[in-house]
Amino acid sequence: MTDDEIFTPHEGGKLSITPTVALEGRRDLSIAYTPGVAKVSRAIADDPALTARYTWTHRLVAVVSDGTAVLGLGDIGPRASLPVMEGKSALFKAFADLDSIPLVLDTTDVDEIVATLTHLRPSFGAVNLEDIAAPRCFEIERRLIEALDCPVMHDDQHGTAIVVLAALRGAVAALGRELEPLKVVVSGAGASGVACAKILLAAGVTDVTVLDSRGVIHAGRENMNVAKYELADLTNPRGLRGDLATALEGADVFLGLSGSTVPESVIASMAEDSIVFALSNPDPEIDPAIARKHAAVVATGRSDYPNQINNVLAFPGVFAGALDAAARRITEHMKLAAADAIFRIAAEEIGVEHIVPSALDPRVAPAVAAAVAEAAGSDGVVRTHVAEVTATDS
Amino acid sequence: MTDDEIFTPHEGGKLSITPTVALEGRRDLSIAYTPGVAKVSRAIADDPALTARYTWTHRLVAVVSDGTAVLGLGDIGPRASLPVMEGKSALFKAFADLDSIPLVLDTTDVDEIVATLTHLRPSFGAVNLEDIAAPRCFEIERRLIEALDCPVMHDDQHGTAIVVLAALRGAVAALGRELEPLKVVVSGAGASGVACAKILLAAGVTDVTVLDSRGVIHAGRENMNVAKYELADLTNPRGLRGDLATALEGADVFLGLSGSTVPESVIASMAEDSIVFALSNPDPEIDPAIARKHAAVVATGRSDYPNQINNVLAFPGVFAGALDAAARRITEHMKLAAADAIFRIAAEEIGVEHIVPSALDPRVAPAVAAAVAEAAGSDGVVRTHVAEVTATDS
Repeated sequence: MTDDEIFTPHEGGKLSITPTVALEGRRDLSIAYTPGVAKVSRAIADDPALTARYTWTHRLVAVVSDGTAVLGLGDIGPRASLPVMEGKSALFKAFADLDSIPLVLDTTDVDEIVATLTHLRPSFGAVNLEDIAAPRCFEIERRLIEALDCPVMHDDQHGTAIVVLAALRGAVAALGRELEPLKVVVSGAGASGVACAKILLAAGVTDVTVLDSRGVIHAGRENMNVAKYELADLTNPRGLRGDLATALEGADVFLGLSGSTVPESVIASMAEDSIVFALSNPDPEIDPAIARKHAAVVATGRSDYPNQINNVLAFPGVFAGALDAAARRITEHMKLAAADAIFRIAAEEIGVEHIVPSALDPRVAPAVAAAVAEAAGSDGVVRTHVAEVTATDS
Repeated sequence: MTDDEIFTPHEGGKLSITPTVALEGRRDLSIAYTPGVAKVSRAIADDPALTARYTWTHRLVAVVSDGTAVLGLGDIGPRASLPVMEGKSALFKAFADLDSIPLVLDTTDVDEIVATLTHLRPSFGAVNLEDIAAPRCFEIERRLIEALDCPVMHDDQHGTAIVVLAALRGAVAALGRELEPLKVVVSGAGASGVACAKILLAAGVTDVTVLDSRGVIHAGRENMNVAKYELADLTNPRGLRGDLATALEGADVFLGLSGSTVPESVIASMAEDSIVFALSNPDPEIDPAIARKHAAVVATGRSDYPNQINNVLAFPGVFAGALDAAARRITEHMKLAAADAIFRIAAEEIGVEHIVPSALDPRVAPAVAAAVAEAAGSDGVVRTHVAEVTATDS
């Protein structure tokens, strides 16, 4: 594509506000605005639960970034992150009919970010954190979940993790294998690496090993951030040490999330029927055609190869389901349910080159939303009466 | 109107996000989102001035409220203010084709409000402050103008003041009088009263007297807020003291902004050819039919009487003009230019029952925008090169 073909559609931004009420004549104005609107405001003042009924906030996602880890571009700042955030908002609308506004922050201070969104809490129904660098992203997400009492999800972590789990279910189904006994090696201990390791553990995989730029994470290492110390406790049951080549020898699954490269010989050293997810973009950790010579299943983040692992399979439906259910938060169970819903659609025509649905499959978001909403109900995180809303207002 | 006719259009809120890019197939996604969007983000990172070109923020108004002075309802909180703020955003779109997002704040602390909007600065192009109680609204506006370096305007103050000035120009034109020598009495020293007094002084009126609930504001009074001390210095050149009846005796203009009532005898005591703006809503300070027995011109805030003073004549065009001109702030000159533009449209068919254009007149917003943009240019507040944008980014 030429630069013109890319830049022209972005002119003036990619979002527009459309009023959903008539504003043609005096009568329209007196309903939508004064004096009619006063009755609606008064009704909400008397019963805050009506906010969900008479404002757009109950299906409004704030797409929030500080611009510190934007795509593969790194810390390019909030202004330069805006085209990505607008694109994300456009996808929310296109895939799940959710309204969404980009809110980019001219600060990287965790306290300031938490305070800003806490003060804005009545303005939205959920928060999609986006492109915030690790390890700050972990603390920001944790504190916002505590402070906001609404669905909050860092998509680079959990959107990726949900789709990776769905794809791994697809891969083992295609190969007639089981998920739990797999030896999984995760290359990368940033936002997505940490979240993928955790969701795999939650899904029952027992042997997960994670590497960062210094090699395998194990309990004997020092000078790590909190997230890595936690991984050291939860993963690496065989007490591996060393580099990626050591870890991958005899492993069943390679999950590449680090932007590094992996030699063919290392992929060749994996166990029989191995599974390679080389997810770095735009350049996978290993050429998928080469990986395919040794692995039984290969997936990438790219749309021009089979098995594209794309977050758009998860985030629209996850937020739609959480908001539809009036969930107060997104639980691990809801994420697992989202992964299952994605897998079930792929399962209808499973194969080693079809372990996930197409990113454009219109069945996915509604199925994910339904599964997430149902899981929210069974988890008891659904806002059910006025008293709860009032309590969170204070 | 029945409650149903009012409430039903507000169901689900009054705003929707519409993507302005195609999102149909793989190619669309790779332009609007990854990988194509990375080029756009990179371009902005290299040249922050391109933010205005490739994001929606350059024509995006944040409609900001803490819900402390909502319509005539008072301090009903941020959630209950949302229907009003969504309505305001809808009006921005309908009248000036400006995008706009409601941001309501769960805090009334001035420092926290300023910090919140400062951290969000890259997310919008201008700030419309709305329904924030006096005197906090004065400090919040002043500090945001300093902090944000973009158009910031508290509409309850300046939108009202602009339309009042335009209407007063219309009234004197209809009566063949002059603006400057008028004795003006302003009842109410809240947001709109303070701003109206100031714009009338800026327009050349020399004899303005303001009253609050304790009576005439004069230099000898104590225990006033900062805004009232300032008024005491700027107004009341004849050193009046006492109540409204005293102040209105022999006055030319009554400007009612306080929600109180005025007896017919007091209106009757005004000078010949008097002008009465009874702007409290929904109940004017005096029945306009009764006022008309004594005054030469009567205006209200209501659409069912002649001469409706409605902020919608000002704010869409003011923000559109300021944003179109890439103004760094809204100057007094820009507000005066807006009032003149409104007056010039009314002047085409001036009369004592037509001192302002109809709130629905489609000529008004473009005329106001053009006048405001021109004034911004001559005031030298226009952002002209990359260096300035970069400086404000830091």
